Amino acid sequence: MTKNIKIHEVGLRDGLQNESKIVPTEKKIEWIDKIIKSNVDIIQLGSFVHPVKMPQMADTDALFEHYKNSKHNTILSGLILNEKGMERGLNCGVEMFCMGVSASNTHSKKNTGMETMEALERIIKIAQELQSIGKKVQVSVQSAFGCGFEGKIEEKFVLEIAKKYIDNGIMNISLADTSGHAYPEQVQRLFAGIKSINEDTTLTAHFHNTYGLGLTNCYYAMKEGAEYLETAFGGLGGCPFTKLAAGNVSTEDLVHSLNRNNIRRDINIDIIAEITKEAEEIFERKMQSYVVSAGQLKY
Amino acid sequence: MTKNIKIHEVGLRDGLQNESKIVPTEKKIEWIDKIIKSNVDIIQLGSFVHPVKMPQMADTDALFEHYKNSKHNTILSGLILNEKGMERGLNCGVEMFCMGVSASNTHSKKNTGMETMEALERIIKIAQELQSIGKKVQVSVQSAFGCGFEGKIEEKFVLEIAKKYIDNGIMNISLADTSGHAYPEQVQRLFAGIKSINEDTTLTAHFHNTYGLGLTNCYYAMKEGAEYLETAFGGLGGCPFTKLAAGNVSTEDLVHSLNRNNIRRDINIDIIAEITKEAEEIFERKMQSYVVSAGQLKY
Repeated sequence: MTKNIKIHEVGLRDGLQNESKIVPTEKKIEWIDKIIKSNVDIIQLGSFVHPVKMPQMADTDALFEHYKNSKHNTILSGLILNEKGMERGLNCGVEMFCMGVSASNTHSKKNTGMETMEALERIIKIAQELQSIGKKVQVSVQSAFGCGFEGKIEEKFVLEIAKKYIDNGIMNISLADTSGHAYPEQVQRLFAGIKSINEDTTLTAHFHNTYGLGLTNCYYAMKEGAEYLETAFGGLGGCPFTKLAAGNVSTEDLVHSLNRNNIRRDINIDIIAEITKEAEEIFERKMQSYVVSAGQLKY
Repeated sequence: MTKNIKIHEVGLRDGLQNESKIVPTEKKIEWIDKIIKSNVDIIQLGSFVHPVKMPQMADTDALFEHYKNSKHNTILSGLILNEKGMERGLNCGVEMFCMGVSASNTHSKKNTGMETMEALERIIKIAQELQSIGKKVQVSVQSAFGCGFEGKIEEKFVLEIAKKYIDNGIMNISLADTSGHAYPEQVQRLFAGIKSINEDTTLTAHFHNTYGLGLTNCYYAMKEGAEYLETAFGGLGGCPFTKLAAGNVSTEDLVHSLNRNNIRRDINIDIIAEITKEAEEIFERKMQSYVVSAGQLKY
């Protein structure tokens, strides 16, 4: 396992978009300031989706504007869904553009009106355009490990999508377990599969905790060369009001586990845990954070 | 990873001993009957500790008596602490004797009044006596990965204890993460370490979920040759009234994850989940069971 693991904090996007309560922009800025201070590598500030469709993300442009001329070591990423999102992101100063397609045709149609391969062509075009003007780009395959609608997703199909990205010169690929169906051996096969298409690919892993395997899957992904892990403070994410309270892997728990092995001790877990505690107050429920419940091991 | 993973259900012992509410013997028998039906490999019915010290375990002898002349494919194990426990166990028909020492001198003194090496001599003697009359024996190293009192436990010391067991002909060894401090790379080193002392050792893993790494650690143990996993229905175990609500790995979640990789599909998860739901009613709280919350994936 590489010691060079990087954390992409996605709580402000994948977490907050699933909460009905809207966090005020000032509070978000407070949190972003703290996360920057914590030394996490990348923060996703929000997504560029229509504000009527997702009022929780309505201030995404404003957040980027706020940091446009500030100095910070953390990369500020934003999720875009289409050309309109790209325009907005370019205008407000997104530093890293994230975008993707779903490996489930059903999920893809529900989200974009297009089946996977059609959506893929469009996303590749956007990614290439951004890369051609020197922007950082990360592309993803959502529902890469299974789908709430379709069940099994063929691994062959996921690798086909990844190969399309690679063949088109987009080398920064995230596999996202949108439904939380992933299991360790499958994670191993898929990440190894992409590396065997092109070993220079930069791999990112994004797991949800539906079956409690989030951390395990992170470890299996890291073993196969995933360098970037997308996690959320407090394990935020997933709808708390459905049967499947399937949050993201919690940032503080992942980093704490890495710390035990002397990896990424430069990240300040206390700061992340502080945000989790504030989120617990705002959303009036306990978060899935073992570090907050049990305290850190300091030896 | 071997496909030959076996489950040792310890909820009735490691789970119930941590609950202040006492489960009636009739209910325990109902649960044991169900667990036998679920096709789990071993069930730990209880421990032979003084009933005044631990009233939750006062009916351990009665439980074994109940099954003494019944036919069942599941092995019924019991935890003994000393010679007195051995006598009781032999009298009531224990099929597999579990016993151990703590790798933390502080923990050992608190539990037995003896430091580790002194306690070890005594346990080895008991284990050898039981083996000499043809009984199944499993020995353990508790607090093998860290200690709530002492913090770090030297890996060298854990391997020294394991070697003592092996040198004395006791080949069935469990490493138990009593405090839940274990992390994946450490798990890998320690299980591999024992295998490198003697590759014929039979390895068992027992993890608590203090930092959410229970399942991850199970997987890392299995990769290094652990064949037996000690888990508890509903992730029962650990004191729910302390800061550290550190339950065991939940049986249904572990088996469900194995099922995803086509391993142990012969175990009936529905039955285990049923018991978890009953335990939720009895103890009036939600258990740490993802399968019960999210339902099983059947594809």
